Amino acid sequence: MELTKPPGSLGRLEGVANRCAGIFGTLSFTLERPRIVLFAGDHGVYAEGVSAYPQSVTAQMVLNFLRGGAAINCLAQVGGIDLQIVDVGVATPLPPLENLVKRRIAAGTHNLCTGPAMTNEEAVSAVQVGIELAELAIGDGCDLLGFGEMGIGNTTSASALTAALTGLPPVAVVGRGAGADDDCLARKISAVQRGLALHSDNLASPMEVLAHIGGLEIAAMTGFCLGCASRRRPVLMDGFIATCAAALAVRMHPAAGDYLFAAHGSAEPGHGHLLALLGQRPLLDLEMRLGEGTGVALSMKLVQGAVAAFTNMATFSSAGVSGPTTSAVFT
Amino acid sequence: MELTKPPGSLGRLEGVANRCAGIFGTLSFTLERPRIVLFAGDHGVYAEGVSAYPQSVTAQMVLNFLRGGAAINCLAQVGGIDLQIVDVGVATPLPPLENLVKRRIAAGTHNLCTGPAMTNEEAVSAVQVGIELAELAIGDGCDLLGFGEMGIGNTTSASALTAALTGLPPVAVVGRGAGADDDCLARKISAVQRGLALHSDNLASPMEVLAHIGGLEIAAMTGFCLGCASRRRPVLMDGFIATCAAALAVRMHPAAGDYLFAAHGSAEPGHGHLLALLGQRPLLDLEMRLGEGTGVALSMKLVQGAVAAFTNMATFSSAGVSGPTTSAVFT
Repeated sequence: MELTKPPGSLGRLEGVANRCAGIFGTLSFTLERPRIVLFAGDHGVYAEGVSAYPQSVTAQMVLNFLRGGAAINCLAQVGGIDLQIVDVGVATPLPPLENLVKRRIAAGTHNLCTGPAMTNEEAVSAVQVGIELAELAIGDGCDLLGFGEMGIGNTTSASALTAALTGLPPVAVVGRGAGADDDCLARKISAVQRGLALHSDNLASPMEVLAHIGGLEIAAMTGFCLGCASRRRPVLMDGFIATCAAALAVRMHPAAGDYLFAAHGSAEPGHGHLLALLGQRPLLDLEMRLGEGTGVALSMKLVQGAVAAFTNMATFSSAGVSGPTTSAVFT
Repeated sequence: MELTKPPGSLGRLEGVANRCAGIFGTLSFTLERPRIVLFAGDHGVYAEGVSAYPQSVTAQMVLNFLRGGAAINCLAQVGGIDLQIVDVGVATPLPPLENLVKRRIAAGTHNLCTGPAMTNEEAVSAVQVGIELAELAIGDGCDLLGFGEMGIGNTTSASALTAALTGLPPVAVVGRGAGADDDCLARKISAVQRGLALHSDNLASPMEVLAHIGGLEIAAMTGFCLGCASRRRPVLMDGFIATCAAALAVRMHPAAGDYLFAAHGSAEPGHGHLLALLGQRPLLDLEMRLGEGTGVALSMKLVQGAVAAFTNMATFSSAGVSGPTTSAVFT
């Protein structure tokens, strides 16, 4: 098709549109029902003093999400994006709440510095929650998916996972998360070092890695990637922690990478290494480090725009527009 | 205000929101009525063989815009953006058309290699068209503006303007535009060199620069920037040619830069130099080089999202969310 634009002039959006067309297997498709699923869970490694915020903030932020007061609510509203909040393992028990998807597997993970974060059964159950939510979204007619997370302490778990996945030393992948000062950063690095040493004999398979040093919401996001891939839908991953989950999904099933799109490049130092591992280049680079799916909410319109341009634009012949006078521009 | 997010975690969007708040002079404002104004004009320098497309494509694309078949139509539709098309000087006469704003000053510019592109009166009239369209948009209630262009041959004029504004040699700022091959690129460089040599004694003031080596749609975009600044509204500039126009507006009135936002970084080599001159860093970097306001259409949601997050998000106290346990994270 000779669309009314110079070849290649939409830059990286051309690759995005082409990948989506490959996923749907047709040139006649739309991306009009986007949904972000936000998975929340707590982390036992919080006990090591790795966060600037109290653990109760995970539950408090879930309530904030449900009331529409968080950054992701504002961005989802601007983007016309459906938002679903899932409790996979918030430590503080939450009351029955309308619109909260309750899939609480445990009251957070255990401290990965003193033992496995989860049992294998818990990790598998959390992955299954993610698969279920992907199938539910696609069953609801959603054609563009995304995922994000909330969990105080989860950049520490994600840093341990990143070190395990990439082989990089903890100091290269640990960052300040939501706002760690120098002392807190040192405790994060130490926690990751001790956790990796403790579990070094149990990090062979992705499921082992998840169970020993992962998180409930991270495992659920891994499952969400797998669910989107198995049902052939494009899925946007948010920042550092979400990309960690996606990297585990790709480690389990490399074809899952074909359905993944990197929403944004996080300010967390481990994120670039994970993106390189996945061969992904993010759509946005705004130095964000908030999580919650905020990068996904901002980038969904770019994917929708790319696809709309390629599926709705007139061709040179249909629009009566002359093509180039030299053939050299057609590549 | 202590919004329910870690300080700084929205990265570059925080600066965008802060700049918008400064422009509106309040924290209670919305960006719910975006409009892109697309200025079209032809260029006499086309005669030097500087484009891969025939000149008639400018008029044909105007018709395509009015029928909704171009990339900008698809992207504006996805973004919920009002789009206005202005004929400032398309060479081919266009019939009266519904929705076309006819402000045709001339049948394109003259060839800048053989004489001034415009008379001073034409350049001033074109700037006034831009000011008028900005005032019209703001009068219509638009709270977020953007501008783009269409004009076969206009990357050559923009390259000449960029060389004049930055002092860089033509070879450093001329690119392939819509798809110039090597021979065409050489002709573009030669045209810019000859044009600058011919007009070297008449490039002192921004209006002189516009009249001698500019374009009708470029002058209109310069006026649009001035109009947005004088009425205090944020305005997104598209890629290389639009940024050229903005740089001229800032040269005329430095305060105009306070209202400008760079939508995206174009693949054209001159663009980065202009952005540096303006002290601007673009929101998107997707290697696009299409013009039409396509970069603006994609980035408007980022500005709207930034502002929505800062004006609608709950505070820690209103949401009952605990703040950080250390004060060090507050900056």
